[in-house]
Amino acid sequence: MYTLKELQLVINEKIRSITIGGEPRGLFEPIEYVLSLGGKRIRPALCLLGYQLFKDDEPGDDVIFPAIGLEVFHNFTLLHDDVMDKAAMRRNMPTVHKKWDENTAILSGDAMMIKAYQYMAMCPDPVLPEVMNVFNELALGVCEGQQYDMDFERRNDVTVDEYIEMIRLKTSVLIAGSLKIGAVIGGASQTDRELLYRFGEKIGIAFQLRDDFLDVYGDAESFGKKIGGDIVNNKKTFLLLNAFKKASDKQKKELREWLDKSDDDANKITAVRNIYDTLGVPEDSEALMNDYYSIAIDALDQIKGNEKVKNDLKQFANNLIKRAR
Amino acid sequence: MYTLKELQLVINEKIRSITIGGEPRGLFEPIEYVLSLGGKRIRPALCLLGYQLFKDDEPGDDVIFPAIGLEVFHNFTLLHDDVMDKAAMRRNMPTVHKKWDENTAILSGDAMMIKAYQYMAMCPDPVLPEVMNVFNELALGVCEGQQYDMDFERRNDVTVDEYIEMIRLKTSVLIAGSLKIGAVIGGASQTDRELLYRFGEKIGIAFQLRDDFLDVYGDAESFGKKIGGDIVNNKKTFLLLNAFKKASDKQKKELREWLDKSDDDANKITAVRNIYDTLGVPEDSEALMNDYYSIAIDALDQIKGNEKVKNDLKQFANNLIKRAR
Repeated sequence: MYTLKELQLVINEKIRSITIGGEPRGLFEPIEYVLSLGGKRIRPALCLLGYQLFKDDEPGDDVIFPAIGLEVFHNFTLLHDDVMDKAAMRRNMPTVHKKWDENTAILSGDAMMIKAYQYMAMCPDPVLPEVMNVFNELALGVCEGQQYDMDFERRNDVTVDEYIEMIRLKTSVLIAGSLKIGAVIGGASQTDRELLYRFGEKIGIAFQLRDDFLDVYGDAESFGKKIGGDIVNNKKTFLLLNAFKKASDKQKKELREWLDKSDDDANKITAVRNIYDTLGVPEDSEALMNDYYSIAIDALDQIKGNEKVKNDLKQFANNLIKRAR
Repeated sequence: MYTLKELQLVINEKIRSITIGGEPRGLFEPIEYVLSLGGKRIRPALCLLGYQLFKDDEPGDDVIFPAIGLEVFHNFTLLHDDVMDKAAMRRNMPTVHKKWDENTAILSGDAMMIKAYQYMAMCPDPVLPEVMNVFNELALGVCEGQQYDMDFERRNDVTVDEYIEMIRLKTSVLIAGSLKIGAVIGGASQTDRELLYRFGEKIGIAFQLRDDFLDVYGDAESFGKKIGGDIVNNKKTFLLLNAFKKASDKQKKELREWLDKSDDDANKITAVRNIYDTLGVPEDSEALMNDYYSIAIDALDQIKGNEKVKNDLKQFANNLIKRAR
């Protein structure tokens, strides 16, 4: 029985040891580069925790490889998202389309998705149909979420509910699906699979709400990135959408004026944050986050699985949510 | 028992009747657009012929949907290839990145590949592991072929063997894999699967050699596109690579001078063709094509399957190869 931290190491070890592909190097080198940049390997580690909930034996290749498939898929989405967002850096290193070129990023990304499916198909044959179902659904969900995210940039009538649905698709279904695939391979009952999916789905939403919150109210050092980026970029997060929902006509006008400004970042951040504070937006955000957190924990509590693993998942949920303000 | 032509209609009917996806429309509309542009539906029809070689019953959804998965995958590769080639038109209609934009083409393409896997996974559960193996291998092969194709544009030392390997990956493995997936679902023996794969692989190479040949020596009307395009674009086909292999130093110099010209297309086509003729390149091309054709037919003849279907496949091979000069 491994802890989440140990599983992250197991995954990293395995990723270092595998050969992604041979020739042509131009296709496989960018994939190896992306996978070597690290990251917390949360999704595959959750997959293995999902497995351990229902199986006492040490996770073998028939669950470790599918877990790696999830990490490969996640990194594929980052690779293509970076092309679409024209992002220059990822994990403090140049993105693939900067280091090579855009065509390389597109084609290596495609090959990377196929590699993800190859690893996924290394699960035991009897569960492959169900694993494929879960994986196909989460993969399509991530694309749908990304499409909504791009659509929202051009829309001015995005509702809070639509935003939640977008982050559910873009962030949560991959976390939830990772847990569920582990559970399927671990032989969980239908009920337990769905409960674990529900846990992942709700905790993913809570996590994204927390991330949005910390982007405005966090401590730059512990948050790990610059504060106020979402405000500067007019990102339609829960905070902004909720502010518009609650604002008086006068406050709406003021908000819109700040959104139109792009030459006064520091004052823009302060002013928008002040409006949020006046409207009680941070409190709403914390309340909503706590709602999702509670539903998640409630689902987890109902699962008939290894109690130590359940505690580890609870700990993981707590760490996600209680990250230093 | 359907003929190839009938199967093409079955596939077209099915594609028209299915719903690719719901919301967000921005993700699924481009996929529906690409699939509505038509095409000969050769790959899924071959998949169904591969099935009929070994099964007498009418093909049901558990083979028709995987067959459609192959068509969806093929169209996905065209979609992303068009982005990489910056092609403006496909089947006489604007390409997705022209009609929408590049990000749409990337993301809808990604979703399209996932849809392909979804259809593929609708095969009967017992054969899913093997179907996934074949499909993953062909999908990765197509990416490798596309990478080689892009690499070759920048290289001046491409050999004939490398070229054959490139077209095997880029064109043949999808044709061969389509046939094999049908055979796997149809319950073919291991030997017959491999023979059928071999037939598809060799006939695919012969087809591409014929296509290169017709680009220079074909009749514009029956070939369906302008003659000499490959010469104008300095495309490293078998003809050009073989010409360089056989040319004297003087002829090499002459060839290189024509390759450097881009303002005199008509004379360039005539001059390069004359060099080909002098060197016996068209005869070499036909001989090589016939070699591959013979190996393909030889493999087909050894298969223990329905004789009517075998004849249909032979007819298909003949039509591919004997297209009017």
